[in-house]
Amino acid sequence: MTNYKIKVMYDGTKYKGWQRQVSTDQTIQGKIEGVLSKMVDSTVEIQGAGRTDAGVHAYAQIANFQLDTNYTPKEIMEYLNQYLPEDISVINCRRVNDRFHSRLLAKGKIYRYRIWNHSDKPVFERKYVYQLADHFDIELMKEAAAVLCGTHDFQSFTSAKKGKKSTIRFIESIQIEQLGKELVITINGNGFLYNMVRIMVGTLMEVGMKKRSVESVRDLLEAKDRSQAGYLAPAKGLALMEIYY
Amino acid sequence: MTNYKIKVMYDGTKYKGWQRQVSTDQTIQGKIEGVLSKMVDSTVEIQGAGRTDAGVHAYAQIANFQLDTNYTPKEIMEYLNQYLPEDISVINCRRVNDRFHSRLLAKGKIYRYRIWNHSDKPVFERKYVYQLADHFDIELMKEAAAVLCGTHDFQSFTSAKKGKKSTIRFIESIQIEQLGKELVITINGNGFLYNMVRIMVGTLMEVGMKKRSVESVRDLLEAKDRSQAGYLAPAKGLALMEIYY
Repeated sequence: MTNYKIKVMYDGTKYKGWQRQVSTDQTIQGKIEGVLSKMVDSTVEIQGAGRTDAGVHAYAQIANFQLDTNYTPKEIMEYLNQYLPEDISVINCRRVNDRFHSRLLAKGKIYRYRIWNHSDKPVFERKYVYQLADHFDIELMKEAAAVLCGTHDFQSFTSAKKGKKSTIRFIESIQIEQLGKELVITINGNGFLYNMVRIMVGTLMEVGMKKRSVESVRDLLEAKDRSQAGYLAPAKGLALMEIYY
Repeated sequence: MTNYKIKVMYDGTKYKGWQRQVSTDQTIQGKIEGVLSKMVDSTVEIQGAGRTDAGVHAYAQIANFQLDTNYTPKEIMEYLNQYLPEDISVINCRRVNDRFHSRLLAKGKIYRYRIWNHSDKPVFERKYVYQLADHFDIELMKEAAAVLCGTHDFQSFTSAKKGKKSTIRFIESIQIEQLGKELVITINGNGFLYNMVRIMVGTLMEVGMKKRSVESVRDLLEAKDRSQAGYLAPAKGLALMEIYY
């Protein structure tokens, strides 16, 4: 068996997210597994590094899988690109060490959130940005972002029910930039809980619109209560940009 | 009656082109007229400057219409943007002289064609570019483009049947640039026949791929025969960028 690693770009608009589901094949993982299984004529399972939600995009998702085949990485990549729909593309494929596991060995991930901060309709970008024409105080957002950086218990920032798993994560950096009509938030961290990026973005937006204070964000980390955090920013503005090892 | 001029941006992907048709309301003109007619509660007809084909996009289409109303341009623009679908946006509206006619007074138009010149799938740009990974000789394309510039009979470059109307047009400039993975062709002229831009682009691409010579383009202008020109480049790569008066 050979272990292959692929880098995948996708427009998540019409998918139910990365992770395969029993009820639908409208998932990115399901689509890729379907094509690989056809290629080698047996069931193939792939491991994705980040389980992006329904409607979330990716510029560089990483996945790996074991194949008992003589196909070269180039042949696998070409086969996948030929049979995958036009909104999913494999941009890289290579053989890796048997012990490589895309998710367990990931050291960190970078997500980007795009807010279309203008009253003009984002005609050509409409599926990749969240439109909100309100005025944002970027300096306040940066202050709140600084509060979230570092190692914290992010229990308040996940939609998942409290379980046995640790909700402590390390946020390396949060960058907030005005780029033309867009306000772009880039978050780099060692791991993210379910919905964590979107709740962090929703909370930072509330600070920017002065609907909550920077101090309240500090309190949130203590509270460990989802209901006190900001709203869930819509999926379409979010994209997984990089996974590093 | 007041004459209003609007500037419109649209993603043409799901429309049957600009011009209203009896058989379908899936046209940009039809959509805008529908909303305006609802606003003033009587039938409104609008004049567009460029009749873009099905699937062609626009960053700045110009149209005008007469309304017997006291609505301000700002109110009209806001009403239109509220009721038009998310892939059509009015980016400007103002009162103009009664004699302003968007099409008859247009002095020229600028169209842009985007070729995705790479084997990577254009996941996020797929509806706005035409993918062709072949090698293009840009210098040869520029030579052929120079042949097309100036005043010529473009009979060979239209899908319209020969009629009484003049097929002589003036092409001001044709710019060909490699921008990252894209080859971008920008054409500026005083007017364009039916399908003319797309046939010009198809012909230039054939020159770039060495499927025809620069000399053959010179002959084409003499031939006045559509069948001798290049193929019709797909609509989705084309966008109307500007109309000037």
